[in-house]
Amino acid sequence: MKRDAAIVESYLQSVLDARPLPTNLREATAYGLLGGGKRLRPLLVLWSCKAVGGDIEKALPAAAAIELIHCFSLVHDDLPAMDDDDLRRGRPTLHRHTNEAMAILAGDLMSSLAFELVATRMQPELAGMICRELAIGTNDMIAGQVFDTLPDFDEATPPLDRLKTIHRNKTGALIRCSCRMGAMIGIQKSSEFKVQCSKFKGNKAEGSASPNFELETQNSELLPLLTRYGEAIGLMFQVVDDLLDVTQTTEHLGKKAGKDADKGKLTYPGLIGIDASQKEVERLEAEAYDAIRPLGEDAKLLKELCEFMAKRTK
Amino acid sequence: MKRDAAIVESYLQSVLDARPLPTNLREATAYGLLGGGKRLRPLLVLWSCKAVGGDIEKALPAAAAIELIHCFSLVHDDLPAMDDDDLRRGRPTLHRHTNEAMAILAGDLMSSLAFELVATRMQPELAGMICRELAIGTNDMIAGQVFDTLPDFDEATPPLDRLKTIHRNKTGALIRCSCRMGAMIGIQKSSEFKVQCSKFKGNKAEGSASPNFELETQNSELLPLLTRYGEAIGLMFQVVDDLLDVTQTTEHLGKKAGKDADKGKLTYPGLIGIDASQKEVERLEAEAYDAIRPLGEDAKLLKELCEFMAKRTK
Repeated sequence: MKRDAAIVESYLQSVLDARPLPTNLREATAYGLLGGGKRLRPLLVLWSCKAVGGDIEKALPAAAAIELIHCFSLVHDDLPAMDDDDLRRGRPTLHRHTNEAMAILAGDLMSSLAFELVATRMQPELAGMICRELAIGTNDMIAGQVFDTLPDFDEATPPLDRLKTIHRNKTGALIRCSCRMGAMIGIQKSSEFKVQCSKFKGNKAEGSASPNFELETQNSELLPLLTRYGEAIGLMFQVVDDLLDVTQTTEHLGKKAGKDADKGKLTYPGLIGIDASQKEVERLEAEAYDAIRPLGEDAKLLKELCEFMAKRTK
Repeated sequence: MKRDAAIVESYLQSVLDARPLPTNLREATAYGLLGGGKRLRPLLVLWSCKAVGGDIEKALPAAAAIELIHCFSLVHDDLPAMDDDDLRRGRPTLHRHTNEAMAILAGDLMSSLAFELVATRMQPELAGMICRELAIGTNDMIAGQVFDTLPDFDEATPPLDRLKTIHRNKTGALIRCSCRMGAMIGIQKSSEFKVQCSKFKGNKAEGSASPNFELETQNSELLPLLTRYGEAIGLMFQVVDDLLDVTQTTEHLGKKAGKDADKGKLTYPGLIGIDASQKEVERLEAEAYDAIRPLGEDAKLLKELCEFMAKRTK
């Protein structure tokens, strides 16, 4: 895990070094992008690629791209007009470190740099497919931010359904997207993947803000496995996050604890209690294992990552 | 011009209608996107496509995408931490109409919706090429915003060089990008375009923050013509803008006049005077005509649009 996270880190650094930019924008972007973090999403891209028989080198642009999107969302989320956070990964947030205007612009840059990266460093046909997946994930994530911070639900929607819609989009979309991108690149690498654009089928996924496009592939059983795994761990990640906000200290987390309760936000422990939330984590963990079981040893790293995500304490 | 602008308008509306989104986010995005505007960039996409023998229908996703990027930049640019503007296109700015958090998120959405649109509605191979062009344009534009609002120039850089760097990136990048995207789509349509990804050549364009990739195509003489046209009108557009800020009223412009001088910004009239600035507009207009002369009658609309952009009073 540490080795591949270090590979992602140095790749991100090289991406930033290679892009001509004003010096101050480059520094602000590096601060927001390279300031630690667990790099879970990039690892999901790399290891989903590996799990379907692909070469992780080929998945690096997509891995770096998803981290750019994730970091852009953190930088904007921390802004005074949004969550107004001073602390992120144990350091001042970007707008505290520089200023609000720079944090807005550096966040904007990270978002479209993700697309530049994929579209510049991957073969055009696969790049088009990956840009599509990445854009859908990004837009669902933004929709999730709105559901979370500026809720506009139908009054008849029960609180647990609201919460699931928030979580599936806000956190789930990028995690699902990471697994799917990795799988798509890996399947293509193993020469069993034929993009058949004309056969897109739009099915709306339960609770998702976006149509759930499935690709017709010559190896069509693999992508749904990784999609199901990604959906399970995506929700699990956020239930764990809800639990940590209640059970851990600010010092341990490196970001403000108890924030959800302070803001009266819907959370799993708030709605169903701590014990039932922990049970839900276990259920989702089992669901994720179940999804990738057919992949056997090839999915070993994904299994370990799922376990890590279930047991993490920050 | 009005007819094609109306086609773009209704296409933008249909894109927004088709995308599942929270109601309030959809409304905010519609407000920021559909509130008038000249739709110059989408028209440049459509008419550049036409000028090289392409079908403008095929260029609609890219035309809508560039307007999404342009409007995202306006929404974020108007924020209190940036230009702090209350008025845009004769109405309250989006953060005044809704709130800052929503304006940040709606801007973020518009940016990645542009990529979703291109990558979902175009064939993957061409989508990959267009996403690349669009992302480079977007990131150069953001670099231009930083050069403009948070300048970090080497002290030895003369003011006119600084101004050119600002203008070429801040306004020029998206205008250049519009012309190039349209040309690429049109050339492909006319079946004389073969993407040869392995032959990208990175040449840094003068004053541009990004490498200037040129495509090797079977019809390689067309793309440079449209690139040259786009670069000339891009700079011309901004010199005209600088002039209008000095010579027109807030009421006429539908946005605050005299802003540049108030903020001590570098401008063409400020650096070389009003007369010399008008001469520069004429020079750039002639340069643009010269670039597309070889296209003859096919480039008639581009010639008219250039004339309109040179003579505009708001």
